[in-house]
Amino acid sequence: MNFDLEKTIEILERTPRSLEQLLSGLSGDWLQCSEGEGTWSVAEVIEHLIEGEKNNWIPRLAFILREGERNPFPAFDRYSHLNRNVERSIEEKLHEFTTVRAKSLERLKELIPSESLLEATGFHPAFGVVKARELIATWAVHDMTHMAQIVRVMAERYREDVGPWVQYLGILNKK
Amino acid sequence: MNFDLEKTIEILERTPRSLEQLLSGLSGDWLQCSEGEGTWSVAEVIEHLIEGEKNNWIPRLAFILREGERNPFPAFDRYSHLNRNVERSIEEKLHEFTTVRAKSLERLKELIPSESLLEATGFHPAFGVVKARELIATWAVHDMTHMAQIVRVMAERYREDVGPWVQYLGILNKK
Repeated sequence: MNFDLEKTIEILERTPRSLEQLLSGLSGDWLQCSEGEGTWSVAEVIEHLIEGEKNNWIPRLAFILREGERNPFPAFDRYSHLNRNVERSIEEKLHEFTTVRAKSLERLKELIPSESLLEATGFHPAFGVVKARELIATWAVHDMTHMAQIVRVMAERYREDVGPWVQYLGILNKK
Repeated sequence: MNFDLEKTIEILERTPRSLEQLLSGLSGDWLQCSEGEGTWSVAEVIEHLIEGEKNNWIPRLAFILREGERNPFPAFDRYSHLNRNVERSIEEKLHEFTTVRAKSLERLKELIPSESLLEATGFHPAFGVVKARELIATWAVHDMTHMAQIVRVMAERYREDVGPWVQYLGILNKK
């Protein structure tokens, strides 16, 4: 096991800053393109990350610590952000992500004052018994999944433009 | 064709900043891990990006503009950075990447003062005729490839730690 709470927080606190530097001020072309119908744009991924802070990670962690294995935790709607008909700039979205993430990390430290709580178990509706530390590790890897998605969506825009180099560019050869 | 020089520069100038926010100050565990033998660590990817600024992108662009299709451009050794036995911190590596990238972008603007030069052609040793704009588009997508690699390598460290969530995390289910 590699899991370490402090080192997981290192990742969680860096994601919003890194995305802010990558995306802030970028042309709409990069932010609105996607990998085709039914796939997310970069802007939609940021909305999804915000939604996770509000309704997934900390709420689920609190649920595990409160309910244990007694009750399965409510399912998280991974598409709910697509129903939010909010028109706002990428900078506003990124700012909200930074703010809600900072609050989540404060709450995380309150919820897990001692390492022993990382072993607390809850009941996932699909997986059965899960541990608090598995949820927290997933939170960090989920950040990485969506960072990879963001750069993959942006790269896709230049699929034709790279000409014959397409074969050397791993990112254009996997989904 | 989506290619646009200004918008490509938007990407190229953001990559070092974004990586700096993601990696600066991070624990060695995240920076030295890899996806197994023969694969690169995050620190090695940064060395590779530095190497590309020095010996690949701008030198090849200058070669295309100078030689046209007369001579194939010299091959770029994609593993040369692994021979550089330089012990230095990630912050020093990131700083160098930021510096050499900024120089590259100045040089890019000097080399391509007018859009018509984007259609200039050169001779790639493996692909044959390639265009200046294809090389520049590849440069940006190459950044994206390595950003995706960096987060994938970091995610890999928690493969076991995420428990049953592994099946929902795209980044752990593709190479």
